[in-house]
Amino acid sequence: MTTRIAFLGPRGSFAEAALRTLPISETSELVAAASVQAALDAARDGSVDCALVPIENSVEGAVSITLDELANGEPLVIIDEAVLAVSFSLVVRPGTSLSDVTRIATHPHAAAQVRGWVSANLPDAVMLPALSTAAAAQGLLDPACGYDAAVSQHIVTELYDVVSIADGIEDTADAITRFVLVQRPGAIPAPTGADKTTLSLFIRSDQPGALLAILTEFAVRGVNLTRIESRPTRKQLGDYYFSVDIEGHVNDSRVSEALMGLHRVCLDVRYMGSYPRHDGKAPVLREGVTDGDFAEAQQWLRQLKGEI
Amino acid sequence: MTTRIAFLGPRGSFAEAALRTLPISETSELVAAASVQAALDAARDGSVDCALVPIENSVEGAVSITLDELANGEPLVIIDEAVLAVSFSLVVRPGTSLSDVTRIATHPHAAAQVRGWVSANLPDAVMLPALSTAAAAQGLLDPACGYDAAVSQHIVTELYDVVSIADGIEDTADAITRFVLVQRPGAIPAPTGADKTTLSLFIRSDQPGALLAILTEFAVRGVNLTRIESRPTRKQLGDYYFSVDIEGHVNDSRVSEALMGLHRVCLDVRYMGSYPRHDGKAPVLREGVTDGDFAEAQQWLRQLKGEI
Amino acid sequence: MTTRIAFLGPRGSFAEAALRTLPISETSELVAAASVQAALDAARDGSVDCALVPIENSVEGAVSITLDELANGEPLVIIDEAVLAVSFSLVVRPGTSLSDVTRIATHPHAAAQVRGWVSANLPDAVMLPALSTAAAAQGLLDPACGYDAAVSQHIVTELYDVVSIADGIEDTADAITRFVLVQRPGAIPAPTGADKTTLSLFIRSDQPGALLAILTEFAVRGVNLTRIESRPTRKQLGDYYFSVDIEGHVNDSRVSEALMGLHRVCLDVRYMGSYPRHDGKAPVLREGVTDGDFAEAQQWLRQLKGEI
Amino acid sequence: MTTRIAFLGPRGSFAEAALRTLPISETSELVAAASVQAALDAARDGSVDCALVPIENSVEGAVSITLDELANGEPLVIIDEAVLAVSFSLVVRPGTSLSDVTRIATHPHAAAQVRGWVSANLPDAVMLPALSTAAAAQGLLDPACGYDAAVSQHIVTELYDVVSIADGIEDTADAITRFVLVQRPGAIPAPTGADKTTLSLFIRSDQPGALLAILTEFAVRGVNLTRIESRPTRKQLGDYYFSVDIEGHVNDSRVSEALMGLHRVCLDVRYMGSYPRHDGKAPVLREGVTDGDFAEAQQWLRQLKGEI
Repeated sequence: MTTRIAFLGPRGSFAEAALRTLPISETSELVAAASVQAALDAARDGSVDCALVPIENSVEGAVSITLDELANGEPLVIIDEAVLAVSFSLVVRPGTSLSDVTRIATHPHAAAQVRGWVSANLPDAVMLPALSTAAAAQGLLDPACGYDAAVSQHIVTELYDVVSIADGIEDTADAITRFVLVQRPGAIPAPTGADKTTLSLFIRSDQPGALLAILTEFAVRGVNLTRIESRPTRKQLGDYYFSVDIEGHVNDSRVSEALMGLHRVCLDVRYMGSYPRHDGKAPVLREGVTDGDFAEAQQWLRQLKGEI
Repeated sequence: MTTRIAFLGPRGSFAEAALRTLPISETSELVAAASVQAALDAARDGSVDCALVPIENSVEGAVSITLDELANGEPLVIIDEAVLAVSFSLVVRPGTSLSDVTRIATHPHAAAQVRGWVSANLPDAVMLPALSTAAAAQGLLDPACGYDAAVSQHIVTELYDVVSIADGIEDTADAITRFVLVQRPGAIPAPTGADKTTLSLFIRSDQPGALLAILTEFAVRGVNLTRIESRPTRKQLGDYYFSVDIEGHVNDSRVSEALMGLHRVCLDVRYMGSYPRHDGKAPVLREGVTDGDFAEAQQWLRQLKGEI
Repeated sequence: MTTRIAFLGPRGSFAEAALRTLPISETSELVAAASVQAALDAARDGSVDCALVPIENSVEGAVSITLDELANGEPLVIIDEAVLAVSFSLVVRPGTSLSDVTRIATHPHAAAQVRGWVSANLPDAVMLPALSTAAAAQGLLDPACGYDAAVSQHIVTELYDVVSIADGIEDTADAITRFVLVQRPGAIPAPTGADKTTLSLFIRSDQPGALLAILTEFAVRGVNLTRIESRPTRKQLGDYYFSVDIEGHVNDSRVSEALMGLHRVCLDVRYMGSYPRHDGKAPVLREGVTDGDFAEAQQWLRQLKGEI
Repeated sequence: MTTRIAFLGPRGSFAEAALRTLPISETSELVAAASVQAALDAARDGSVDCALVPIENSVEGAVSITLDELANGEPLVIIDEAVLAVSFSLVVRPGTSLSDVTRIATHPHAAAQVRGWVSANLPDAVMLPALSTAAAAQGLLDPACGYDAAVSQHIVTELYDVVSIADGIEDTADAITRFVLVQRPGAIPAPTGADKTTLSLFIRSDQPGALLAILTEFAVRGVNLTRIESRPTRKQLGDYYFSVDIEGHVNDSRVSEALMGLHRVCLDVRYMGSYPRHDGKAPVLREGVTDGDFAEAQQWLRQLKGEI
């Protein structure tokens, strides 16, 4: 049976472009969802097998709806990630030239990211809000849409009868968006040696040293963090949680032991998946924290306890 | 001369509502700015004395543009904060009743926060994107706007000829937005005993234990954190910084010593202001970290060194 | 077969008095050894089953020969401890009165601990060195011994034909000596809920943060220390080790995990035994570190990994 | 006026040999004291200017009487240290050869350290206790002393009419004793760049994490420890203190700040002196903790506070 994957639509969205960088997309049926919530709900209710949603943007920061839904909603786990350089094009109906453009539609986030280019090249153009960059491009198909250009990703030129008249118009050259592929809890992807694990760590509001305690649980086992954010919980006013990404797989001994330690000191720990890093970069481990080191230490302990 | 304060507009925005909770607003000229960037730039170039912009939303998370501009742009410091409960109303032209509503305009963020109420009460309504919630309300003044209701904050009913037909329609009851009042570096507000300090801490990308080191600098001096986020820097790919709020004022001894310690271990520390907490909540200090304790320790040291 | 226990002799020594506080002494053959070294060697070569030697004195501090032999010599493990209040008597041949005493023999350590009493009561007496307090008492049996009193423990009056003419003559009232009962590695005493474990932790000389790392391994698992000393190793110049006592038994989960962690970060860890505390005082554990907490965390981890 | 220095006698003792390695001894009057206590008391009551006493022996460990007197007694501070390799000679009256030796006198500690050599070379010799090694050598001057050889340090051959017939007879080649020169609190020796500071840190008995807290105070300021020992206090049963040596001088910024931090978290901190290291080894400092780094951080803080 074909795997069905929901993505944050519409067709031609950054999410679709990101999804197409994952091999699984080639043999799957891709389903556009109207929102992050809709994509996640589809994965939860089984109408799709998994969902690809944005989790972090180097310009806009964390995608709160994704973080909070994964932390607080019905459990889903991350099984893969994809990273996409964010790049915008100015797309128009065939035949429109730059000097014809007076009204531009796009999503407000995208508008913020091309402000410099637009000021310099189309200082008199009016910006109009659209629900998404792809929707803005699609809207051009209707001559009565009320605008003559859209800021969108280049991929829309393959989907709709529009053309790009300027590429790479984003103000920040190296902006990237990170997406995660999630599914209902089940089989965990096998370790690759270059994995990440995402966790939500819930803390009591009255614990000033809680974050230090959490980081010490990681540090003692040689586990490095790659992202951390404090977030208010939805459960009780004043409580908060930390959303963290760490290097390593839940099957790695150092990660396993750290997770159990966190489970003992936190109000709650939600495991949100172990998955291969998009860049394949293996962690640099300090001495004494490989699986071999953990196994050797256990052997030593069992010997001195007379168990072997 | 009257103080001029820019706020994230348009008139009737949440930012204006937040600004009006600060006493300084009563004697100042309030200037709507088109964007966070525009508000901050106005403070920088002196066209206003200070600017009020959102920094954090309990539903949407950090406002990245604000964090990053304050961390990386030309220096501005926070001198006050305001917190506003986020609450939405459904506003219409006078005479429109709930059963008349078929098309609703609002900002996409607001749309996300009232999704539940709309599904339950207006399941067939179409949602249209607007540049801001206030702009959506203002748009109603034009009968040809193409929609018959706007999701906006209640304050717009005082500004425009619109009325609310449903208040408190947000799905999450306790959502709040935190705003900060910033100005060019200068006099620091006097300590009140219930202050916060905001910092950006820049780290080298190759320091796995950096966060633990940072937290230890705070913990050793009994300084509590109230917010932390890791953010990519704009300076070099792979580098990141931590945006943190701590309890206390830069003039507090424990904060002073922690700041100097951070200055010694971080690539860079940007001080972003000490200001009174909006809730007036004094920190709970552990033993040995009051200004008196620091002074007494210094006296003791000077005595044993024979200086006094 | 009767258990044979060597103790630091001679008969009537503090070590014998301490040994007699342990129930095992009642059914064992007690063998006086000439020195700590001799007692330990007897346990090593099998000529006795175990040996009782002093390890710590509240006035004199650690007994280095014991610590170093247990840390560096052929392995022996501690299976029990005994604590004895140090108290001295002035013993004489029957018929001698205080005013007759002009020359007093004792071990130099004992002489140091009764200096105040002797100065006050026998200001003109000459102190003579003896190999041990018990030997000094025994020497009195020979009228040609050259002295007329000995500072010794009261028990010698039961062994030899001597009497005490002053008890409790020590200057420091609450001095105690701690003794340990050691045997070749084998079965570990069952946990009692109020146990101690003794370890030697070997460190590379060039590790400035090593002690902090070691303490963190303990702290993360909620293991408390009751004694710590840095000691030079005999293995290589400049290297040192830490001799530590911790609360808990090697079979306790928190101790097991801490030991494995130490094994991974130290040059070497020598386990020197888990044994019941002489005072039966159970440790006060922080939240999350009981065996139940460890088991529950492991269960949780196995569930999320899909193993159960 | 000539400086008077007491040392742990008698003449020819290791303490005298150690004292003679310090330049100050050349122009001072050296006074033999009968005990550590007597030497310290002489410094306290002004009958001498300073006193040299042993504090640590690589075989015997800490000299408890010295540690405890300095920690608990009337204050004295260390102004210098000397280290002496412990080496023993077999000394006899002129004309005595090795084969003539049947009875050997020495201090019991020395006897323990030459046991191997004596067993191998004089297996039938009887060991007799003496109050000190120097006293044993001096005793040989009396032909009726009852023994024909003494284990002592070689220096006695310059003081008395005795000769050495075997040098370097100690079992452990690299044993050393460390001595400290103490005086009443007053001027602190100037920093040399290679200094040590000795402290006694008093802790409440009910603080399980106290040692970790103490070490963190040091670590945060980049201060390295070279020695640590837990010791029972004499003040209250169950309380204890840590005797520590650290790298650096009280005038070094990192040490000053650490001392003030410790003063705030400990029950009591006793400063026991900053003095040049006997080996002249400068500390290896991590980045950010030189006096220059501290001064620069203070300058930075003052600037951002608008003080300069």
